[in-house]
Amino acid sequence: MPKTEHYQWYTERFAPTEIHAHAIEETYFAGRTAFQAVAVLRTAVFGKLLVLDGDTQSSQADEKIYHESLVHPALASVDDRRDVLILGGGEGATLREVLRDPSVARCTMVDIDGEVVELAKRYLPEWSDGAFDDPRARVIIGDALRFLKDDGGRYGVVISDLTEPLPDSPSFPLFNGEVFRDIKARLTPGGVYVLQASTAGFHNLSLHAKMARSLRAHFRHVSSFYTHVPAFDNDWAFIACSDAVDVAATGAERIDAYVRTLRGENWFYDAQTHRRLFALPLYVRRALAKDGDLFA
Amino acid sequence: MPKTEHYQWYTERFAPTEIHAHAIEETYFAGRTAFQAVAVLRTAVFGKLLVLDGDTQSSQADEKIYHESLVHPALASVDDRRDVLILGGGEGATLREVLRDPSVARCTMVDIDGEVVELAKRYLPEWSDGAFDDPRARVIIGDALRFLKDDGGRYGVVISDLTEPLPDSPSFPLFNGEVFRDIKARLTPGGVYVLQASTAGFHNLSLHAKMARSLRAHFRHVSSFYTHVPAFDNDWAFIACSDAVDVAATGAERIDAYVRTLRGENWFYDAQTHRRLFALPLYVRRALAKDGDLFA
Amino acid sequence: MPKTEHYQWYTERFAPTEIHAHAIEETYFAGRTAFQAVAVLRTAVFGKLLVLDGDTQSSQADEKIYHESLVHPALASVDDRRDVLILGGGEGATLREVLRDPSVARCTMVDIDGEVVELAKRYLPEWSDGAFDDPRARVIIGDALRFLKDDGGRYGVVISDLTEPLPDSPSFPLFNGEVFRDIKARLTPGGVYVLQASTAGFHNLSLHAKMARSLRAHFRHVSSFYTHVPAFDNDWAFIACSDAVDVAATGAERIDAYVRTLRGENWFYDAQTHRRLFALPLYVRRALAKDGDLFA
Amino acid sequence: MPKTEHYQWYTERFAPTEIHAHAIEETYFAGRTAFQAVAVLRTAVFGKLLVLDGDTQSSQADEKIYHESLVHPALASVDDRRDVLILGGGEGATLREVLRDPSVARCTMVDIDGEVVELAKRYLPEWSDGAFDDPRARVIIGDALRFLKDDGGRYGVVISDLTEPLPDSPSFPLFNGEVFRDIKARLTPGGVYVLQASTAGFHNLSLHAKMARSLRAHFRHVSSFYTHVPAFDNDWAFIACSDAVDVAATGAERIDAYVRTLRGENWFYDAQTHRRLFALPLYVRRALAKDGDLFA
Repeated sequence: MPKTEHYQWYTERFAPTEIHAHAIEETYFAGRTAFQAVAVLRTAVFGKLLVLDGDTQSSQADEKIYHESLVHPALASVDDRRDVLILGGGEGATLREVLRDPSVARCTMVDIDGEVVELAKRYLPEWSDGAFDDPRARVIIGDALRFLKDDGGRYGVVISDLTEPLPDSPSFPLFNGEVFRDIKARLTPGGVYVLQASTAGFHNLSLHAKMARSLRAHFRHVSSFYTHVPAFDNDWAFIACSDAVDVAATGAERIDAYVRTLRGENWFYDAQTHRRLFALPLYVRRALAKDGDLFA
Repeated sequence: MPKTEHYQWYTERFAPTEIHAHAIEETYFAGRTAFQAVAVLRTAVFGKLLVLDGDTQSSQADEKIYHESLVHPALASVDDRRDVLILGGGEGATLREVLRDPSVARCTMVDIDGEVVELAKRYLPEWSDGAFDDPRARVIIGDALRFLKDDGGRYGVVISDLTEPLPDSPSFPLFNGEVFRDIKARLTPGGVYVLQASTAGFHNLSLHAKMARSLRAHFRHVSSFYTHVPAFDNDWAFIACSDAVDVAATGAERIDAYVRTLRGENWFYDAQTHRRLFALPLYVRRALAKDGDLFA
Repeated sequence: MPKTEHYQWYTERFAPTEIHAHAIEETYFAGRTAFQAVAVLRTAVFGKLLVLDGDTQSSQADEKIYHESLVHPALASVDDRRDVLILGGGEGATLREVLRDPSVARCTMVDIDGEVVELAKRYLPEWSDGAFDDPRARVIIGDALRFLKDDGGRYGVVISDLTEPLPDSPSFPLFNGEVFRDIKARLTPGGVYVLQASTAGFHNLSLHAKMARSLRAHFRHVSSFYTHVPAFDNDWAFIACSDAVDVAATGAERIDAYVRTLRGENWFYDAQTHRRLFALPLYVRRALAKDGDLFA
Repeated sequence: MPKTEHYQWYTERFAPTEIHAHAIEETYFAGRTAFQAVAVLRTAVFGKLLVLDGDTQSSQADEKIYHESLVHPALASVDDRRDVLILGGGEGATLREVLRDPSVARCTMVDIDGEVVELAKRYLPEWSDGAFDDPRARVIIGDALRFLKDDGGRYGVVISDLTEPLPDSPSFPLFNGEVFRDIKARLTPGGVYVLQASTAGFHNLSLHAKMARSLRAHFRHVSSFYTHVPAFDNDWAFIACSDAVDVAATGAERIDAYVRTLRGENWFYDAQTHRRLFALPLYVRRALAKDGDLFA
């Protein structure tokens, strides 16, 4: 066989009957932290990949689709962005996007897995792009729930970059009424809570819909939005929640004015992209309109 | 090993280093027509799949995302939809969507591969859903380019459901200035030409951008739009072209009024979905704004 | 991607972490009988493949390695071969090999799955090569165990081509002292019972060793032999049992004289091959010499 | 999906339509030397694997099948084994087997890729098992052909563990009449030249047969032998050549006496295994008996 044949593959099984295989160009790291299995790989199409417990977390080629969507719709909609809180986000790219906003005076990031933070600094410096060295960054290695209980701060935006509450996953207990109340207690009056919120794929909308239903009991405005993230092989959803601000309705001029204040250039997000993110197809709206069970 | 282990797989290689594998639940047909290799399979997540020359053409589970996007933005934007022309579209789902519009008096479909049409009738009746038996359907087995030259009709909408003009593909000669002029000659004055227009994935926007650039030399309004089609493992693009109508700007009220006239219910498309389809992220707009070579 | 890319694969998982994938050139049949899932495929290297419940049963290219090994060492070692009994063997290749011996006056084959027999006649005629039409063939569709109880005949050779007694498999009850006694009751005084006896691969010798240990409690001579069968991705073992004949010790002259009487030419087996089959490497002999549990 | 799902795979394509995939438990090393791509992996069934240019070289679980076959039939057949020469053999396992023979006073090993030797010492110490530290070992990093020309020594056994002379491979020039003459010039009068000699699989016997044919023009006794090596997914062949000794005919008592002198225990080879190795099935003998072209 030709010597150029690829012979190491990373496979992701996103259903028992569906497998995506990426040829591995290089393995930078493969091992375990105290919390999870970690691999840092490189592929031809996606560049570097961070893989946690066998799930792609982000790829160099399209992580901006995910991180700009997670961060900027919320920030563009909030007036007082001096203090921002990130739950999770170990790779540092969420931190990077927040700190591109010169209105942010301090960004606190709480991630339980300090080893992932160190691996990301070493192998994925493109993700944080210097953000860990920004004097406005406050990185806390610890339990996000504990932090919410203990901390007395108030944040204009709270961003949850935690894994979604799949049954039997360690994130399952992170998603319930008590946690929502703890997060609300940390928001400023005009503040927004935004979270990554599982897939919006046609065959698996139920977890996202349950998350949205549950949050509606706690916040006045709860807006789902989503985009296709190629490295996830899926449409990926987010939810913006607030008692004061309807993020879905933030105006184009406000958004573009906000984007112009950011350091560096956006790759994905601006007012037109915002319109795309929040305009949901019929089948998604129908799934979101259905009744069903809640996270307690 | 467990007897329930899946042991037949359909693999699609969408880059030399990227493979998607679907477990095959059932093989309805696998063979060749005079023009191409054809397989009709069933998978757990996507239902039935039509595969031509190893490429997924459409899946039962999400074909409406593709076919509603291909058909309805154009039809919703045109006043005189009495005569519609489809180039390609052998499965019959484009025909089905067109004939859901009671304003359509006749829909002509020209596909070169009569065997695929017959296979679709037999194995994929969900795709055409009776459209081949609609008295308004005129199905012509023959060469689409030849038809454009010989036919004297005028069509409010011309829909191209042909494969994209990849180098060395049989569709390559179907995409050039002469063909665009032939299509224009078949359009009514207020008519729209809409075509499927290759991937809009971040790593492979160049063919779509070249198609759009080329069409801009021939039509006053040329609007790219796209959506993620899960069965294609990709964002998929379309282009709407017209000298009279700016499809991207068609208003929400007009769209929803149009949708209400359709027989049966849409699954994907309405005014909000239209907004999503035509709102393009920054990196897509930048790729479309670049200069480059043209199809001659 | 090139249109010649293979896009349908048959995968066999012979350990949770080991997969062999064959590109499918053609699918002749894929469906279910009353007893099992059946696929008849063609691959480039192995030709046609018969797959039952996801396990390769035999391939056109190397089935003679398996079937000549199963049949001829036993027949070459027995004087009175007028009546031969096959348990299982639906494809007809074991029957074919037995009937190549002109000393055989009648060969009775008992297989529970008549649909597999019919599928083999239709799609795998190379396997039986006319044997089903031989007037000496007596094919009984029914339960082999029931047959052993009810039948009053005596057979010089009893050949078991049944699947091996994996825990939870339908063949598990077919392998115990009662069955061995029933088989013995059907053997002529100089008769031999030979069976396919699972893998002899270094990582999975335990089932074969348990089968051999269990049979030693019932027969005076119990000889394991094995060969690599490429289509099985494995070394494959057999066991010859007899109170009268030591098949392992059958002399080269007797074997070659026997082989010369066969109709047509052997492809794999003769006296030298016999020597290979029964000469076992050290690690196999050590595994066979160990004590352990028995089939009751 | 379950977190225990394997998600990194090593795939070996041993025909364009046949792929073997091993789940990777751990990647010890993946990189390039000046001569080749090297990976050291661990799998559940095979333990550690050494992979050069995408081809499995040996596995921890079954490397003794290969290395005992390569070394011991030749050594058991030669009286004067004081000096032994290994061409290639970078992993050190061939060296290990040779040095288990206390009659060997010096074993010279010439391998061009010193980086592979160092990687093997670091990651695959089980292969050499201390042999590199044995004072009888003389390891030369350099070109084997150059060594044959320049060296004035005489060796009772010359062992070639080089890759086989596939067209366009770097080993192609290492296999021709001039090289055979150079090797003969280094053999003692009663000496044996033994080499790994490509696959003996039913679908790919031609390279081995051509190697054997070519050597018959240079040596009086040329004996093919083979065994299934599971990690190679194939039957693997060797050739023993000598003007003085017929290795195939070495007697059982001599072999077992030789084996008893070895330090430590054999896992695979003894007199009975020797009988197996050299007893070839009909289809192999027929392939070897055919005329055909030669290596010049």
